Amino acid sequence: MILAAAQTFCVASAAGRALARSVRHYCREAPTKLRISEALSGAEPGTNVRVQGWVRSVRPQKTNLFLHVNDGSSLQPLQVVAASTLDDPSLTFGSAVDVTGVLKKSPHHKQPVELEADHIHVVGQCNPVDFPFKIKERHSLEYIRQFPHLRCRTNAFSSLLRIRSEATAAVHSFFKENGFVQIHTPIITSNDCEGAGELFQLEPSSPENDGNEHFFSVPAFLSVSGQLHLEVMSGAFSRVYTFGPTFRAENSQSRRHLAEFYMVEAEVSFTESLEDLTKVMEDMFRCVSEYVLAHCAEDVDLFHKHVTPGHRDTVDAMLKKRFPVITYSDAIDILNRSSEEFTFPTHWGCDLQTEHEKYLVKHCGNIPVFVTDYPYDLKPFYARDNQDSPQHTAAAVDLLVPGVGELCGGSLREERLELLRARLEEAGLEDTYSWYLDLRRFGSVPHGGFGLGFERYLQCILGVANIKDVVPFPRFSHSCLL
Amino acid sequence: MILAAAQTFCVASAAGRALARSVRHYCREAPTKLRISEALSGAEPGTNVRVQGWVRSVRPQKTNLFLHVNDGSSLQPLQVVAASTLDDPSLTFGSAVDVTGVLKKSPHHKQPVELEADHIHVVGQCNPVDFPFKIKERHSLEYIRQFPHLRCRTNAFSSLLRIRSEATAAVHSFFKENGFVQIHTPIITSNDCEGAGELFQLEPSSPENDGNEHFFSVPAFLSVSGQLHLEVMSGAFSRVYTFGPTFRAENSQSRRHLAEFYMVEAEVSFTESLEDLTKVMEDMFRCVSEYVLAHCAEDVDLFHKHVTPGHRDTVDAMLKKRFPVITYSDAIDILNRSSEEFTFPTHWGCDLQTEHEKYLVKHCGNIPVFVTDYPYDLKPFYARDNQDSPQHTAAAVDLLVPGVGELCGGSLREERLELLRARLEEAGLEDTYSWYLDLRRFGSVPHGGFGLGFERYLQCILGVANIKDVVPFPRFSHSCLL
Repeated sequence: MILAAAQTFCVASAAGRALARSVRHYCREAPTKLRISEALSGAEPGTNVRVQGWVRSVRPQKTNLFLHVNDGSSLQPLQVVAASTLDDPSLTFGSAVDVTGVLKKSPHHKQPVELEADHIHVVGQCNPVDFPFKIKERHSLEYIRQFPHLRCRTNAFSSLLRIRSEATAAVHSFFKENGFVQIHTPIITSNDCEGAGELFQLEPSSPENDGNEHFFSVPAFLSVSGQLHLEVMSGAFSRVYTFGPTFRAENSQSRRHLAEFYMVEAEVSFTESLEDLTKVMEDMFRCVSEYVLAHCAEDVDLFHKHVTPGHRDTVDAMLKKRFPVITYSDAIDILNRSSEEFTFPTHWGCDLQTEHEKYLVKHCGNIPVFVTDYPYDLKPFYARDNQDSPQHTAAAVDLLVPGVGELCGGSLREERLELLRARLEEAGLEDTYSWYLDLRRFGSVPHGGFGLGFERYLQCILGVANIKDVVPFPRFSHSCLL
Repeated sequence: MILAAAQTFCVASAAGRALARSVRHYCREAPTKLRISEALSGAEPGTNVRVQGWVRSVRPQKTNLFLHVNDGSSLQPLQVVAASTLDDPSLTFGSAVDVTGVLKKSPHHKQPVELEADHIHVVGQCNPVDFPFKIKERHSLEYIRQFPHLRCRTNAFSSLLRIRSEATAAVHSFFKENGFVQIHTPIITSNDCEGAGELFQLEPSSPENDGNEHFFSVPAFLSVSGQLHLEVMSGAFSRVYTFGPTFRAENSQSRRHLAEFYMVEAEVSFTESLEDLTKVMEDMFRCVSEYVLAHCAEDVDLFHKHVTPGHRDTVDAMLKKRFPVITYSDAIDILNRSSEEFTFPTHWGCDLQTEHEKYLVKHCGNIPVFVTDYPYDLKPFYARDNQDSPQHTAAAVDLLVPGVGELCGGSLREERLELLRARLEEAGLEDTYSWYLDLRRFGSVPHGGFGLGFERYLQCILGVANIKDVVPFPRFSHSCLL
């Protein structure tokens, strides 16, 4: 009853305002149900409140009992102080509690308030012997990864999930503020976006007929990229983007690959040069990062202090300078001149391997670096021909970042009907992509776009070595838990 | 060069501020590149500007040429006025143009400004004979649906896409403002969320081995719901949500079903009754709708005036009153007493069919209505047992809306370990869902959640009869174009 009366759900025009209003609203009644972040940030000492969450620590002392209660709204728990008479053997690490009492100004500088409890109800018990996480132990990311259904109950992974949620909001905010229309590009597609990697194919699990006929009448795959569908939209909208899951059926156990991962993809019409794309890529990286560092300071600190000590300096350095731009040919010169022993030798025309990408990033001062104008023959049919010689290149660009290597890939798209048709004919794909040629037949415009791997972005900012630790439920070959 | 210098990309804290700032910034240089929505809403007459877009109408007159140019940033085009000497045979409906000139106050009340052009460059031609959309013709939604790669170039579908983008933003904003953490629940899953419908199964399109082994070692499916994964998170976060694609391999050609559709799903911990859920559902419906009606007024009007005349009155009526709540038992009484001839007869214990849902909505005044407490045996294993008799019900709720029928479905979840275990044992699913039982073993809390079909929501608000017309690329049996 209290809950229904006290909670206000609304879309406020400015962040924070809703919170302030609902906190004021709450304070009229007693006890007021508060989320812990609200109790810590906005509530007046003296207020009679009710909080609900999970116990993160228990310290019974002679006359008092101290609990830390967390409800996921912030990394910082609320300290609950109660008379020892309120102690209960089922008040264990991981148990769920419902606490009422009075907020008091805290004597400790680490927290603004604490809750002097007059009632503690154990809502859900948690047997400390069976529960895989132990009080006061710092479990490694590898250890907690074994418990996909429980790992959100650790500090590290709940911080990761809050950061991921805020970074997602920042991506949407960046594009919205800059006039991009969000397009829900399809997951199921009949394209096999040439060159983008191994595909998953799908059919109903219990086909109605004998399985000789496809559900969609044609073979259908999981999308490896929303690019071609965004390009459809680029014929009517000058700025579009999509942000969702994409898929690769690659048999990889790498620390940088997943079978299901999130991509941010944008497409800009009426481009004049690759600079129109690198500007969006760099501004997005910068804006989202600044937002996350400002809005998730506590959660980010956990990673920068305990997971990868010192990583904050790398991040600060990344955001201080403009990202340098070098051509692929420059990159090959740098690699050829280097004294580093590479597993894969380099020459003009070769693909850049992760070892090369990491070397280039170091060479440029350990900050993100754009590499442009790749060999024409390395790039898919849609990349725009630079029509140069003798070194024939396409107007493509990658963004390489510290620790990760390739974070973004993009290109201007071939908007010239005759050049695109010739290339598709050469590849025997003219019929398959006749709809794509139509986009160039009717009101074609110069345009380009890029994709950013969202998990790799999180790895880069947080310094997390393994991509499986930045995604709620990692999917990779031989593993699809839950 | 102008583009790179003039554009500012940033995350502003309040919507609109970034636009105002960039418009001021633009005006320092000449010609200033503007999006058409900026030219129409924020730019000073007298400014020397450059716009780029697609021609939506051409009217050559004796001394002047009139063009309407659209770039997707708004439904309203910018009127371009030029001397007849600038006319060009390739200035046709659908062609892409780059126009510079001076903004003038418009003599017409329908538009604030028009562009007096001194230069018009045709960037991409469009042969009006081959282009499937004709100038001045109003094409039906059925007609334009035949051209999935071009239909965004029509007014109706570009309006739909802007509305869909804004409604998506409003959903995220609603949850963010109310303290929900966004979770990217997985698309690929090894669960076959019992009872939710037909599944798609996936494997690599070119398996490395002879196909006897699964890529993920186990059979893998496309998610029909993020609920169970959200419930994982409900053990650490008191409010979570997800918004993404879900899948059903149903062989349906209905106007309300797709094989790939978007769902908004939320899960709330520490619930006390179904009212905690209906409040979130109703507030979300109301807030998102009010946002869309306010921020996409022009685009929504196109649907309310030309696609379903009179639908605005239905929408206004929906938003005026609180949504009534009736129990399933009430609903059966209403249906049994009705004089309507139903195809499916009704009795306590039967599933409600679309015809019943639509009747109930009409009966309650043609506004959204909640139906609660369905027969226990109709609901999946996770629905919370009301432990009532003789009519045994579960704490489940559906939201039925005008024109569509079922829009949302939700329930309290069975948080009591012993009851859940007994039900899973009965169904022989105890081993499959041992991880799900773990959620009740460790710090279990009363919780519940719901899912909303996003396409059906758009149908309901816009009055669009066919679900294929509210999604960028519809996927259904025998159809997966592009």
